[in-house]
Amino acid sequence: MHKLMAELYPICRSITGDGLRETLGRLQAYVPLAMHEVPTGTKVLDWTVPNEWNIRDAYVKDSRGERVVDFRRSNLHVLNYSAPVERTVSRQELLSHCFSLPEHPDWIPYRTSYYREAWGFCVTHRQLETLTADEYEVRIDSTLAPGNLTYAELVLPGETSEEILVSAHACHPSLANDNLSGVAVAAFLARHLRQQPRRRYGYRFLFIPGTIGSITWLARNEAVVPRVKHGLVLAGVGDPGPVHYKRSRRGDAEIDRAAAHVLRHAGRPHELLDFTPYGHDERQYCSPGYNLAVGCLSRTPDAQYPEYHSSADNLDFVRPEALADSYATCLAVFDLLEGNEAYVNQSPKGEPQLGRRGLYGAVG
Amino acid sequence: MHKLMAELYPICRSITGDGLRETLGRLQAYVPLAMHEVPTGTKVLDWTVPNEWNIRDAYVKDSRGERVVDFRRSNLHVLNYSAPVERTVSRQELLSHCFSLPEHPDWIPYRTSYYREAWGFCVTHRQLETLTADEYEVRIDSTLAPGNLTYAELVLPGETSEEILVSAHACHPSLANDNLSGVAVAAFLARHLRQQPRRRYGYRFLFIPGTIGSITWLARNEAVVPRVKHGLVLAGVGDPGPVHYKRSRRGDAEIDRAAAHVLRHAGRPHELLDFTPYGHDERQYCSPGYNLAVGCLSRTPDAQYPEYHSSADNLDFVRPEALADSYATCLAVFDLLEGNEAYVNQSPKGEPQLGRRGLYGAVG
Amino acid sequence: MHKLMAELYPICRSITGDGLRETLGRLQAYVPLAMHEVPTGTKVLDWTVPNEWNIRDAYVKDSRGERVVDFRRSNLHVLNYSAPVERTVSRQELLSHCFSLPEHPDWIPYRTSYYREAWGFCVTHRQLETLTADEYEVRIDSTLAPGNLTYAELVLPGETSEEILVSAHACHPSLANDNLSGVAVAAFLARHLRQQPRRRYGYRFLFIPGTIGSITWLARNEAVVPRVKHGLVLAGVGDPGPVHYKRSRRGDAEIDRAAAHVLRHAGRPHELLDFTPYGHDERQYCSPGYNLAVGCLSRTPDAQYPEYHSSADNLDFVRPEALADSYATCLAVFDLLEGNEAYVNQSPKGEPQLGRRGLYGAVG
Repeated sequence: MHKLMAELYPICRSITGDGLRETLGRLQAYVPLAMHEVPTGTKVLDWTVPNEWNIRDAYVKDSRGERVVDFRRSNLHVLNYSAPVERTVSRQELLSHCFSLPEHPDWIPYRTSYYREAWGFCVTHRQLETLTADEYEVRIDSTLAPGNLTYAELVLPGETSEEILVSAHACHPSLANDNLSGVAVAAFLARHLRQQPRRRYGYRFLFIPGTIGSITWLARNEAVVPRVKHGLVLAGVGDPGPVHYKRSRRGDAEIDRAAAHVLRHAGRPHELLDFTPYGHDERQYCSPGYNLAVGCLSRTPDAQYPEYHSSADNLDFVRPEALADSYATCLAVFDLLEGNEAYVNQSPKGEPQLGRRGLYGAVG
Repeated sequence: MHKLMAELYPICRSITGDGLRETLGRLQAYVPLAMHEVPTGTKVLDWTVPNEWNIRDAYVKDSRGERVVDFRRSNLHVLNYSAPVERTVSRQELLSHCFSLPEHPDWIPYRTSYYREAWGFCVTHRQLETLTADEYEVRIDSTLAPGNLTYAELVLPGETSEEILVSAHACHPSLANDNLSGVAVAAFLARHLRQQPRRRYGYRFLFIPGTIGSITWLARNEAVVPRVKHGLVLAGVGDPGPVHYKRSRRGDAEIDRAAAHVLRHAGRPHELLDFTPYGHDERQYCSPGYNLAVGCLSRTPDAQYPEYHSSADNLDFVRPEALADSYATCLAVFDLLEGNEAYVNQSPKGEPQLGRRGLYGAVG
Repeated sequence: MHKLMAELYPICRSITGDGLRETLGRLQAYVPLAMHEVPTGTKVLDWTVPNEWNIRDAYVKDSRGERVVDFRRSNLHVLNYSAPVERTVSRQELLSHCFSLPEHPDWIPYRTSYYREAWGFCVTHRQLETLTADEYEVRIDSTLAPGNLTYAELVLPGETSEEILVSAHACHPSLANDNLSGVAVAAFLARHLRQQPRRRYGYRFLFIPGTIGSITWLARNEAVVPRVKHGLVLAGVGDPGPVHYKRSRRGDAEIDRAAAHVLRHAGRPHELLDFTPYGHDERQYCSPGYNLAVGCLSRTPDAQYPEYHSSADNLDFVRPEALADSYATCLAVFDLLEGNEAYVNQSPKGEPQLGRRGLYGAVG
């Protein structure tokens, strides 16, 4: 799983565009995903699929022509979804378009502006402090134009029409734990489950851009939604922290009890959290109009570790053993759900005669 | 409110008759009441509307022709609903028809005999002790004859067909707290609510004789009863004691929770009492066959103050500030009920897109 | 009751046969029982009525022709339901067919082999130790042949079609507490209830062989089963231990609450036990397909006293005062159930007018 993450890490992803498309394409080496393309402008629930974003290059050049901020060094340097720009700006104007983290002067923050057109650069605070010249040349060679939103889906049929949904957001650029970890664990779970000779439940894996992706899937799958009996969002499952399971809005759904049971018996530190309307795509799956039994499995919850949404969330931050533990936890939950059946007494009137079946001592 | 009470105080009311009719007529200066007349003999639930009672004069005269007990001094002196009598009686016979309060020798008790024909006088205990002559002339110039039971009703329509019932008994003669206080507070509430530009609920005010009045109204309004969503009986709301709210039989009806909430947050002493089948007209509204959500608002509960049902329950016993506090408490309960609504999510599927409504930061 | 037990004690009973038939016949001196005969081979739920067993004699003779084990001394000496046998056997073979209680060397155990053909003897451990010769002559003069399963039933009609079931197993040979005690208490309860002028409930008494008897009754009475509102199995109700009430599977059935109430207020030691699928015929009545509200009344629970299923469970072990207490407890439970009714208000709208029924003071 860590090797898959390393392969995907350099790609500049966003909620649409070729970076996301390429990422999903590479997952097909592991599992046979169906690719979906949803045109810009499509109404999805309360939202609209935005223009597709693509980027080739971006930089800030000083008067000597030197790239003092360079997209080629890290795709985090550009405000994700930046509109194109190419001109000379004053230091003051430049600074009003720059984001840094003063408390972590060597880290690049990750910032986005999906739904309002803007341009900007994300820089280390040390970089910011060197921007002392009067003028800079800025260029973002991006396009925001009608295109498609891309997501990938894998359905593994089960013996019943009921399904377990596994969802991972795949829209972040060079960030490792958030959420190449979830993408990698989901891909390996899919590969494993696909090889099982018997599945009581069907499994549906979604690799989607966050928020707009789950909203798009929900809008296009009204007939499928009632089949989703249980679900897990996988997000931030590679850091060294203990597992956190966030319950569905229902709070006492079978998935909630299954996850609690597995974690309680695993003998490792863990936390159970109640649902809140903040977090990842469980926000959409659990929204009141659907109220699906979908929980979220993480390690350290989002925004509770300093590396979150910065260049410090890199491949070193993610541990193979944490990925393995998250993977095993998911499988244990699925095993429990698969076996959580009730046997129906076929002879409920009076006792079955055990003796004639060799199940009772002959001499009483 | 106290001024209205003072105007009504001298009138000799009973459960039927011209005193009740005149009282209700005078309320029409405040609110446009509909007057109802229900003929003697009408079957109402398990009861029958009795003969109408009217009285012109009553006295006990001694041998010198002096009125030693005189209806003209206080209408409490006559046993309410007394049959007519005019003859000379021995001291012994007279005493067997007299009621007094030895423990409060200067107070006249209030006694009634609605449903069995009798005659009698209510006197102070000091008066009783002066009745030492051998014979007295007694006269009660009353009539008990077929007529009508009178009650008054005001309906203020609301935006919904559901109603809040406000009921006050108006049958007691010269007693102030019980229940000219309830009559006055109800009349002023009606006047206020009538002027409101918007009422979610309809309001139905009843000014009725106790017990037989609410029974008569219930018997004649089977189609209205299901509309009564909440209700308050107002009784004894002018004495200086703390507010007591007696719950409906349901105990957890919205009116019960609303009254508890208002009193708990009012910061003044108060008591919450469970329903009992003793008290005022809530006995009828809450009887098992109706079980309406009708509570009773009082200050000191009936029969728990010594002045209760005696001439000491007079205009001095009732305080304007207590009336005002009872009035404000009722309005606060009505305000709470009016606003106690649940908002329905019009976009329950997925999150509403806050950004395009200016409710979300542009840069994530 | 103890006298009745003494009369029945010597008879060699089993789950079928003349001993059971004679026992039930003698009960008819107390109550008019209907006798039922169900042929061998009849399918009853998951079971089949077995061959009828009858026995005339059984012994082990030594080489001198002396009966060293003799059925005529105690019918417990023969393995109940033994197949016939008549031959000379080695000591080793004989011992493999003998049962004893080493920890109680003077007691004869009670053993059965109803559903697999076998022969055997039950002996005191002291007897066993004297079997030192090389050969013995064994004879069991029994028959296992098509016949009938016998049970007896008494139905006392009540004012309603609902019934209280009382069931006692009557299949054990010379054992007193288990369950001639239950048979005797049930017979006396039936005699008493039959004389009552009014019974709200019908009462149905069953005197049956254990397990196969209740299964047979259930299989033949599908139309009656829904009428069984409450029930008690009586088993082991004569030993000196405190009363134990074992709840029905429902756990909160009216019979469970009634028994708990009676015992709690009796002021004597007692125990309330939850249902388990071990015990007496409540196993069948409470099986999931019926789930009847049938509890079990015992004193010391079965298998929890050393005399259980041995010759020490004799007439001395059973105390008349324990029988009387069990009998009184049952009657108290039945009395409670008979009186556990709710009165329905025939005038639920408004208050009934008490005055015209003489139930209210004329002067208010």
